Amino acid sequence: MRRKILLAVSILLGVTPALAQNEPALSPKQAATVDRLIDKGLEDDRAFTIVESLTTKIGPRLGGSEAEARARDWGVETLKDLGFKNVRIETFDMPYWERVNESARIETPFPQDLKITALGNSVATPDGGLVGEIVRFRTLLDLQDAPLDGLEGKIVFVDEVMSRTQDGSGYGWAVAKRSGAANEAAKRGAAAALIRSAGTSESRTPHTGNMNYAENVTPVPVAALSNPDADLLASALSLADEPVRVSLDISVRTLAKVQSGNVIGEIPGKTDELIVIGGHLDSWDLGTGAVDDGAGIAITVAAAKLIDELPGRPTRTIRVIMWGAEEVGLVGARAYAAEHADELDKHILASESDFGAGKVWQFRTRFSEDALPKARVYQKALRRLGVGPGNNNASGGPDVMPLSQVGVPAFRLYQDGSDYFDLHHTMDDTLDKIELESLRQNVAAWAAAVYIASELEGDYR
Amino acid sequence: MRRKILLAVSILLGVTPALAQNEPALSPKQAATVDRLIDKGLEDDRAFTIVESLTTKIGPRLGGSEAEARARDWGVETLKDLGFKNVRIETFDMPYWERVNESARIETPFPQDLKITALGNSVATPDGGLVGEIVRFRTLLDLQDAPLDGLEGKIVFVDEVMSRTQDGSGYGWAVAKRSGAANEAAKRGAAAALIRSAGTSESRTPHTGNMNYAENVTPVPVAALSNPDADLLASALSLADEPVRVSLDISVRTLAKVQSGNVIGEIPGKTDELIVIGGHLDSWDLGTGAVDDGAGIAITVAAAKLIDELPGRPTRTIRVIMWGAEEVGLVGARAYAAEHADELDKHILASESDFGAGKVWQFRTRFSEDALPKARVYQKALRRLGVGPGNNNASGGPDVMPLSQVGVPAFRLYQDGSDYFDLHHTMDDTLDKIELESLRQNVAAWAAAVYIASELEGDYR
Repeated sequence: MRRKILLAVSILLGVTPALAQNEPALSPKQAATVDRLIDKGLEDDRAFTIVESLTTKIGPRLGGSEAEARARDWGVETLKDLGFKNVRIETFDMPYWERVNESARIETPFPQDLKITALGNSVATPDGGLVGEIVRFRTLLDLQDAPLDGLEGKIVFVDEVMSRTQDGSGYGWAVAKRSGAANEAAKRGAAAALIRSAGTSESRTPHTGNMNYAENVTPVPVAALSNPDADLLASALSLADEPVRVSLDISVRTLAKVQSGNVIGEIPGKTDELIVIGGHLDSWDLGTGAVDDGAGIAITVAAAKLIDELPGRPTRTIRVIMWGAEEVGLVGARAYAAEHADELDKHILASESDFGAGKVWQFRTRFSEDALPKARVYQKALRRLGVGPGNNNASGGPDVMPLSQVGVPAFRLYQDGSDYFDLHHTMDDTLDKIELESLRQNVAAWAAAVYIASELEGDYR
Repeated sequence: MRRKILLAVSILLGVTPALAQNEPALSPKQAATVDRLIDKGLEDDRAFTIVESLTTKIGPRLGGSEAEARARDWGVETLKDLGFKNVRIETFDMPYWERVNESARIETPFPQDLKITALGNSVATPDGGLVGEIVRFRTLLDLQDAPLDGLEGKIVFVDEVMSRTQDGSGYGWAVAKRSGAANEAAKRGAAAALIRSAGTSESRTPHTGNMNYAENVTPVPVAALSNPDADLLASALSLADEPVRVSLDISVRTLAKVQSGNVIGEIPGKTDELIVIGGHLDSWDLGTGAVDDGAGIAITVAAAKLIDELPGRPTRTIRVIMWGAEEVGLVGARAYAAEHADELDKHILASESDFGAGKVWQFRTRFSEDALPKARVYQKALRRLGVGPGNNNASGGPDVMPLSQVGVPAFRLYQDGSDYFDLHHTMDDTLDKIELESLRQNVAAWAAAVYIASELEGDYR
């Protein structure tokens, strides 16, 4: 046990003791194949072609929409054209929400428009909109600590700023205000809630994303202001010597049940053990879904295809999933986990690429303690790509979470997300933001990791 | 003559021979005052307060609009509050154009929305919009060289990319396509024209600006695509194996005659000789007009106020003009030049700040050859701010052009515009883009230059 702990610690530090007998390792031939895959990945044009095709031919593809259905057809065609096997759509039903119209304006004392976007699942304003006095809270915590009276009929404005971080952790806490603002506002009888975008962009591109109402509140509409518009509203509050009143007009359309689906294709292995990879096919409706998550689809499909092009079959089957309806609540992921509950033991490892197209900088795992020494094999292979060792608390990616929760081991190739939240969930999520060199580095890292997952003996449970 | 040429060359190179007798110079006391003004400018908070107030209290203020009228009242109040004298509005009439609605969409084969903005002065599309096949030209020159037939009923797309430059010269040629695209399209019977924005932003923030129809064409509507949307349309054209058809719907409102005006205030001098400075009060309708040109107003007002705060009156009168209706064709500038035609000889020097809030990096002049040695006095004073010597072909700024054309000498404090065209004429022209340190450097440079212009003996004609 002590040795294991030492080994785990040293792996985390990227300093590993000399390889003992019986340590997991690739054969020299396999190691050479990994290097060849990385070389090929670094020259890959297929991923860019795939994400260009998806963003151009389909563009925005909200979960449950007609555009997402066209994207599924695109996915089937793309996988078949590349020679993937067992290509199919696994459908599921879901509720549907879409924005129809949204606008906001400072009415008094300084009339001018504000750029907003409704958060996913927000209720509409009453017909003709509403007008309310703005009450600003610097953070969600300040709102949570506010008295339960005094906000009746007002518009709560949670002005909390999100931090720019490499690993995206700034988003982790910023996102709490998305549901939190509306629910705390509703509890206090406010008419509506506005939040500063849970994003880092300095453009007037407000950031959407899903929210959920608590069960015990009467839902109030909620929208995000872009960062410059949040600044503007804060300036108006500081310069005004009377209440600042804002009008808000949001209309939405909802349907109780529509169909969506996961698109699945495989590189069959010599066994029916599965390595599950992919990205999500749906996107928010504001941009064309290039970094979120056309890139993830493109990277994983291109990586799997590189393995398919090797001589001979991989040992394990590589299952690529283009997940449906991720943004609106991991609907496809939950449907898959339920549908495939009886073959979960065949799922050796799962991972999703869903953090843009920035370079991979860290390899994290969620392996059993016994399997942890295997991480070194991946780390060694990826080191030439500038990928360092990470911890063993990885999420395998949003769509892998329902699988992780029932014990499927996971890994994640962490991408540099310093600029990701300038784009993510905004109209600026477009193809031009993807850098070919970074995309290629991702393909190389994925091809290497997936090949190792397929060939390295033993499992991770 | 030879000596003058040598001197001019050496001034251009920033290498000046030892000061000869009778060379223009400040007195030691004046030189010390210049340094004190620069020190004060580098600590100035007034400029930021002014531009925050204008962008927050008024926001977008299109030439001729009701908002521009509110901005004039704001200007009068601001100048009076600061103790400027002879504060007044000089009104003029002008035609009016405003956008009402604008949208575009790829209809076939890859349906999705495109972000556009109509160019100022564009005619509307027919009721219900129009649909046409896209014909792409890489540059305006390619369109100019195209045959006069073959484009009937089509939508011309001029995809010319603008270069990012420090001095803004990339805009100089990019802007030609704004009128050029529509006029060349119209000549060829096209239904409409689209251009890639004459801006450098990677956000989906299309760039507006004024255009004018040639006399001999039937006007067709014209709009700009954001850079990412131009990329998208180009991708669609490259991936489609059938014509790409786009729908375009633009509605506008025009009025034959509305009132606008220039807001004027003065720091009275001991003489009625004038140093005319300022920025333009109007903005495009998409942003809040922070860098274009709230910053120019703020910088010049704050600089003049620093001079007002010196003990004693300046020698020459400093006239600050908040020019009206600049964006839509220098309407205020032309009105002023006409209205003040009989006192032009009292206009010793004129200059406008209208290039954002980036740091000043160069001092350019438009002096007579006899007056050119005076440039060294300015250069010497500004050098500590990182401002280098420039040529003698300066435009004094757009609103100064009508004065320059009738012989009023000018100078210009060139600002770093590397990022200016990410913001200019887009919805992203907002207060948050202004950096306090840069704004202060501008105030310091302007205070120094205007003080020298007021105190240095002799004129520049």
